[in-house]
Amino acid sequence: IKRAKNKTNLPSMASSAAAIVFSNSPFRCSQIHTHHHVSRYAPVSSSVVSFNRRRGSRRSLAVNSALIEPDGGKLMDLVVQEPRRRAMKREAETVPVKIKLSRVDLEWVHVLSEGWASPLKGFMRQSEFLQTLHFNSIRLEDGSVVNMSVPIVLAIDDDQKFRIGDSNRVTLVDSVGKPIAILTDIEIYKHPKEERIARTWGTTARGLPYAEEAITKAGNWLIGGDLTVLEPIKYNDGLDRFRLSPSQLREEFTRRGADAVFAFQLRNPVHNGHALLMTDTRRRLLEMGYKNPVLLLNPLGGFTKADDVPLSWRMRQHEKVLEDGVLDPETTVVSIFPSPMHYAGPTEVQWHAKARINAGANFYIVGRDPAGMSHPMEKRDLYDADHGKKVLSMAPGLERLNILPFKVAAYDTTQGKMAFFDPSRSQDFLFISGTKMRGLAKKKENPPEGFMCPSGWKVLVDYYDSLNAEAGNGRVSEAVVSA
Amino acid sequence: IKRAKNKTNLPSMASSAAAIVFSNSPFRCSQIHTHHHVSRYAPVSSSVVSFNRRRGSRRSLAVNSALIEPDGGKLMDLVVQEPRRRAMKREAETVPVKIKLSRVDLEWVHVLSEGWASPLKGFMRQSEFLQTLHFNSIRLEDGSVVNMSVPIVLAIDDDQKFRIGDSNRVTLVDSVGKPIAILTDIEIYKHPKEERIARTWGTTARGLPYAEEAITKAGNWLIGGDLTVLEPIKYNDGLDRFRLSPSQLREEFTRRGADAVFAFQLRNPVHNGHALLMTDTRRRLLEMGYKNPVLLLNPLGGFTKADDVPLSWRMRQHEKVLEDGVLDPETTVVSIFPSPMHYAGPTEVQWHAKARINAGANFYIVGRDPAGMSHPMEKRDLYDADHGKKVLSMAPGLERLNILPFKVAAYDTTQGKMAFFDPSRSQDFLFISGTKMRGLAKKKENPPEGFMCPSGWKVLVDYYDSLNAEAGNGRVSEAVVSA
Repeated sequence: IKRAKNKTNLPSMASSAAAIVFSNSPFRCSQIHTHHHVSRYAPVSSSVVSFNRRRGSRRSLAVNSALIEPDGGKLMDLVVQEPRRRAMKREAETVPVKIKLSRVDLEWVHVLSEGWASPLKGFMRQSEFLQTLHFNSIRLEDGSVVNMSVPIVLAIDDDQKFRIGDSNRVTLVDSVGKPIAILTDIEIYKHPKEERIARTWGTTARGLPYAEEAITKAGNWLIGGDLTVLEPIKYNDGLDRFRLSPSQLREEFTRRGADAVFAFQLRNPVHNGHALLMTDTRRRLLEMGYKNPVLLLNPLGGFTKADDVPLSWRMRQHEKVLEDGVLDPETTVVSIFPSPMHYAGPTEVQWHAKARINAGANFYIVGRDPAGMSHPMEKRDLYDADHGKKVLSMAPGLERLNILPFKVAAYDTTQGKMAFFDPSRSQDFLFISGTKMRGLAKKKENPPEGFMCPSGWKVLVDYYDSLNAEAGNGRVSEAVVSA
Repeated sequence: IKRAKNKTNLPSMASSAAAIVFSNSPFRCSQIHTHHHVSRYAPVSSSVVSFNRRRGSRRSLAVNSALIEPDGGKLMDLVVQEPRRRAMKREAETVPVKIKLSRVDLEWVHVLSEGWASPLKGFMRQSEFLQTLHFNSIRLEDGSVVNMSVPIVLAIDDDQKFRIGDSNRVTLVDSVGKPIAILTDIEIYKHPKEERIARTWGTTARGLPYAEEAITKAGNWLIGGDLTVLEPIKYNDGLDRFRLSPSQLREEFTRRGADAVFAFQLRNPVHNGHALLMTDTRRRLLEMGYKNPVLLLNPLGGFTKADDVPLSWRMRQHEKVLEDGVLDPETTVVSIFPSPMHYAGPTEVQWHAKARINAGANFYIVGRDPAGMSHPMEKRDLYDADHGKKVLSMAPGLERLNILPFKVAAYDTTQGKMAFFDPSRSQDFLFISGTKMRGLAKKKENPPEGFMCPSGWKVLVDYYDSLNAEAGNGRVSEAVVSA
């Protein structure tokens, strides 16, 4: 009954909410920010508890009682609030040892701070690290199991370890030395780099982007502990307003009266094959009896490899796709997932799915070779294209999540549009790979009509153009190297 | 009450049973074999079911109702019985494709046939293989989880795959072409060798003994299916009588009226430090209130690396240790575990523990760096010495097993015997490594008195002497290389 009442209010709310995501109006955005701000720093508690506590209050609409429960029953929020914040900031300055965070470290602080990795309360201690490496899951004190497939760890070097000595806490600072968080009840343990890489990627080949960026050159020790984050993590890149936390996303889904949330992870431009898939998923969920399935289109915003299209350009492209009506803004929430990318295939896809449970998604779309890439040393894909969805469907701690395997979409030359591949007339279909797509955009050529909306395609062409311009200015870029 | 009654009969039974293990009397052995033969090929059913079915029958004494339940509730027995055996043997001859088993393959057939890997019914299909690699565990149809940390798989090459075509079964044959088993409802899938090695060992360094023996040169495909084994696996090496199956071990423990079974895995000669540990474990279990804890001393009998002491010499050494009274034959069952050795540290120790649950053990002793070895390429141990017991204590599917961490024993120079290490007087203790022990035995020198019973030590000296003799006959051996 409660949900039905929400839904009565849906149309107007949904359209305003959809506008949030791609509105350039500062007014609308700040309005939303204020709203989210309030809920974001509200005391954290499980959805059940908060529902009870808030029942009958004016904020009951914001309670996500209908959504899937976060892992461990409670969505973590590690950002300290006033009045404690002020005291913690002072304390952060006085803690003797400061650890400088790399870009990827900071992204993990962001991920942890908002509860994407719930029930983790900070960087992993050794018992969590070992369970992640060996079991892709962590057993909680009550005996229940949550999925956790990629190590979320912080590396320090010998000198830092020596300076920490017997201290039980350190302050984490950004690249200019500004305190970001305090890590307490710390535990320092060996960083078994080779083993970490082998068990996470299933290879130790040189050239794994994340390993080169964040593991190989990192320190020989890992430091775990509980994280207290001083302020919400912001990047001031014009995209912070698209970075909704799991708590904010849950509110948004509740405001829209969603009775199913289906998540789509991506790190590439959206083409009409993706759009077909997302539209078709909603159709299937309606057929299953859901009244208002909402799509969480959740592009990854953290570290990506050099030849992926950067986040800012991808967001521009996604915006055009929504403007063009390829996806329905009323039933779509586009928001940035702050995690860095591992390219660890079947291991990483579990993380991508698990984090979206915490954001309220109970359906997860998984495609061919999720989080995959080419083998860095051999002429083949690193992972079998089917392993990702198979592993995901069997993963411990994800039993509550409905896995929706991707149907393969391709360009149907007889219809002049993207359609689900029909093996009985395979000669009619054209597969346009990411490499081919990039090649066309670099040469400013157009893909077949119906592959991507023209305004979205133009963003890609502009991106590669900008690389050429940079290259013309004497900077080396992929466009030049491969030209 | 039932258990108490069994125990009344204990003394006489226990002594005769202890005599089984190291008796050289053909009469006693054949007597025992007959007995085990009957129970071994009895219909397989869960211990609960068989208890009910057999209640009141003359064989009720042999029912293991007091022992820990096998994984999945049912101990697998894949050896076909008469009258079906005769038909299956004929069928095995007529199946068009025969796959020749390597030595290690045959050891796995042995392991599977006796239910050490219950509930596995044969070589892994892809879903089991992927769960093993990623989760070290397998979810059963009823939603429960069993531990399974090392892949038990059969590799075939491109030509064999082509010859199999659309067949749904193959016959597995030994090195001289004799049919051993039929594999039915087969599934063929890619053998991702690099990924298998990386996820199992946490390294892909060349020189891992099992990988070199059984993976790197093996075929590019894996074939899973249900196994029907034609005859019990025998090696005719004079040691078959020491190879008790999990079913036979369970009967033995029940005959002895064991109310706790503690397993000790080893692949090395037993010294008095081991003996102290096993004796002390029994003392602790008695203190915990158990009335008759029985030790399963279960040396590994399958593939081992070249510089390990071979099984036949280890068994001679173990025999001397028991004869010498270092371990109490009344409360000790020595039997061979037929698995090959992976040397995969924290991953493999789970397999060693899980298999012993199936053999009836509810306590498992775990030491420093279990199943570990030196890194094949770097000057360090491959695994952190503490990871094994930590991983084991957190492993999914092993919650029912009581893990007993090893106390460190060393030679106490003040007492002239092996004792638990006391860090407050560390200068009194002498650590005698495996390398040091081998070095002394090769040079026919004696270890400090009290390190190992003299008759057991003599076996080691004789072993290295036999290597020298072989070397003298023109054969290369480790003893020569390192001399």
